[in-house]
Amino acid sequence: MNDRRIIQPRTLKGFRDLLPEAMQAREWLIDTARAVFRTHGYVPIDTPALEYTEILLGKGGAETDKQLYRFEDNGGRDVALRFDLTVPLARFVAQHIGELGVPFKRYHVGPVWRGENTQRGRYREFVQCDFDTIGTESLAADTETALVIHDVFAALGVGEFTIHLNNRLVLSGLLTELDLADRTADVLRSVDKLPKIGRDAVADELCEFVGASPAQAERLLNALTVTGSNSQVLERVAELAGGAADSGIAALTEVLDGLAAADVAESRTKVDVSIARGLDYYTGTVFETFLAEIPEIGSVCSGGRYDDLASVYTKQRLPGVGASLGIDRLLAALEEIGRLATTAAGPSVLMTMFEGSRSADYVGLAAMLRRGGLSVELYPEARKLVHQLKYADRKGHRLVVIIGGNEWDAGTAQVKDMAVGTSQTVDIASLLETCRQVLGTATG
Amino acid sequence: MNDRRIIQPRTLKGFRDLLPEAMQAREWLIDTARAVFRTHGYVPIDTPALEYTEILLGKGGAETDKQLYRFEDNGGRDVALRFDLTVPLARFVAQHIGELGVPFKRYHVGPVWRGENTQRGRYREFVQCDFDTIGTESLAADTETALVIHDVFAALGVGEFTIHLNNRLVLSGLLTELDLADRTADVLRSVDKLPKIGRDAVADELCEFVGASPAQAERLLNALTVTGSNSQVLERVAELAGGAADSGIAALTEVLDGLAAADVAESRTKVDVSIARGLDYYTGTVFETFLAEIPEIGSVCSGGRYDDLASVYTKQRLPGVGASLGIDRLLAALEEIGRLATTAAGPSVLMTMFEGSRSADYVGLAAMLRRGGLSVELYPEARKLVHQLKYADRKGHRLVVIIGGNEWDAGTAQVKDMAVGTSQTVDIASLLETCRQVLGTATG
Repeated sequence: MNDRRIIQPRTLKGFRDLLPEAMQAREWLIDTARAVFRTHGYVPIDTPALEYTEILLGKGGAETDKQLYRFEDNGGRDVALRFDLTVPLARFVAQHIGELGVPFKRYHVGPVWRGENTQRGRYREFVQCDFDTIGTESLAADTETALVIHDVFAALGVGEFTIHLNNRLVLSGLLTELDLADRTADVLRSVDKLPKIGRDAVADELCEFVGASPAQAERLLNALTVTGSNSQVLERVAELAGGAADSGIAALTEVLDGLAAADVAESRTKVDVSIARGLDYYTGTVFETFLAEIPEIGSVCSGGRYDDLASVYTKQRLPGVGASLGIDRLLAALEEIGRLATTAAGPSVLMTMFEGSRSADYVGLAAMLRRGGLSVELYPEARKLVHQLKYADRKGHRLVVIIGGNEWDAGTAQVKDMAVGTSQTVDIASLLETCRQVLGTATG
Repeated sequence: MNDRRIIQPRTLKGFRDLLPEAMQAREWLIDTARAVFRTHGYVPIDTPALEYTEILLGKGGAETDKQLYRFEDNGGRDVALRFDLTVPLARFVAQHIGELGVPFKRYHVGPVWRGENTQRGRYREFVQCDFDTIGTESLAADTETALVIHDVFAALGVGEFTIHLNNRLVLSGLLTELDLADRTADVLRSVDKLPKIGRDAVADELCEFVGASPAQAERLLNALTVTGSNSQVLERVAELAGGAADSGIAALTEVLDGLAAADVAESRTKVDVSIARGLDYYTGTVFETFLAEIPEIGSVCSGGRYDDLASVYTKQRLPGVGASLGIDRLLAALEEIGRLATTAAGPSVLMTMFEGSRSADYVGLAAMLRRGGLSVELYPEARKLVHQLKYADRKGHRLVVIIGGNEWDAGTAQVKDMAVGTSQTVDIASLLETCRQVLGTATG
């Protein structure tokens, strides 16, 4: 057996393992988001990783098609791995809406796969986290979507953030007013470049490639770059659109009023009439979310309202609103600004082992501390203290309990606080109390 | 657009959607298990769904090969979806152990894929949940594995359960004593059928197909079917093995002593020297877990100790011990006996809506209750009470808050307790307190 060829352990290009620290951070992020979704009445679903290719391509474009992990299964079916959670949601809702009823509010966390170019740190497998409300046109659902985004980022405690809001009706109103409605797609493609290439370059594009007059470009860009408080922006844009954007402005106002009523600070919302977010899909409110410490990475949570989710799979019209949290992208951003937390079980204890023959006694003491509400890991072998302390340090344990032969005889234990390096010797009978006291101070 | 062909929404054969109720149950099960793993110092990892086929087949047998979802990716690589979490663990550990150090304790929850026959309710995609301790031969790790199984099932509250324990050294000692060691594989294959076909049929098989004498078969089956307390069983098997099983019996005794020291009731452990669990893989302690209310479904959590996890991928010997919780299988079992719980956010409130023009006020009240620690869903539209009550019932809300035009004018709200059908009218100023009071009683 020793001569057997060793297979080199490796992952596929664009795929990766998550080591414990990274996975703890992902669990923290997902657990935090799910807790917020649940308190707002969203419920979880799951769908298969593999679907009929026909289902997945029902709505996808040519680019998605090329990125698909697509193959023939052993039964001769044309199948593929899902590339997002939106297409599966549309298929799911079309299939089950009779049983589910409306409004249907769901969240869905899971991996998706895209055979993307792996330059610039892109992975071919990544976790998405979507939440949506299906089957209502009420703006209260738009407000709640923004409020959930707000509550998730507040719960994460990742520093200040701003939710940018727009309504597609504002944009289309402006374009109608400016006689550019027939070139909406081209205009928006240029306008989407505003943050990257700046106002002058967009103006040039609008004139050269879209065929707008300099006056049209000027008026449009004036409207899209209005600054001030949310109400000032809305007021000015209403003027510039000459009434054509009023329905969009009224909708945005209702959402902002709802957020204010929920005590969301105005500094955390920003009306930004330049955001479009995809031409075909969104039809009303659109959201983007930016972290104050790292705005250059772009939106970390985006979404909006759509008229009809599942027209490919059902004749029932299903309007909805929702947003998507790019879990792995957000984790990379939070790591960059040192804002990662983890779901480790909180301040914890390593029970060291020095007398292998008393293994059961160590197991019993660790279990006793655990029943007392502590997280306790038992080192499994009798090894030198230095090894066990190094292990405690690597695992991030706050306390180390040390009981060697002398301590067993005396009925005592040493409790070492890894944060400050101090030790105390206590009776085993008061071990739980001592650990709690030290940890109580520690977490304060 | 209306003439466009509708694509029939459907999932692949052997795949399924999880609707909210089923997914809430899965989240409850996984969250409960993860909390136990964390309090014992296990940390999470993740590995890709797709691996090089060469990696996955490194250890698999012919049957696994046939079940593989295997294809060539767009880069011409021979890839496949993982069929369990053990092979990826072996590859992961071989690749990263230098960085991770030993002992390495990890848990891993994720979907796996097998193109199995879909008869008898088997799915081709299902979630597994494994935990292992790598890099130690200490029996304290075996004890902890059993203790984690115990703590998970105790935390789930799914009724009584029994952890069956054996040690492969007991079996091999018995077979040596009986001069059957050269036919170990054949003997164990027959013995594995004991629960299904019974003692007499196994005795026949041992004589007819394995070539044991009636006396050998008799002595073996006497040992394997000894009954009594754990210590009685161990004592009797020690006698029957004439000393050849002593190392296995000593190891089992140490694990049992550790569990007793951790206050695990003896009724929850059962020495069962007939369980073998796979011929090639396990080398020491083996575990199986049975639910008292539904033993016939077989073991719901199994595992054991192995000598060398990753010999296919590294020359470093990596002994370990662990177990696997078949999440979806366990959920099906728990549903059958009515023991399913969910991770719904606890007792919760539906805030109904009757005045669409006061949408922001409803949003604000719901947010206020949420800040008070309640889970609150806002119904997004002003509809008839009967619709909203039906919705509250379907979503399982305990309380419904009703504020129509008259109530807004009077500054009051009706609070309806869906569990008992009673309503009370209170000032909006005391709404949070009232909800808390009713829910406090409700959860008592």
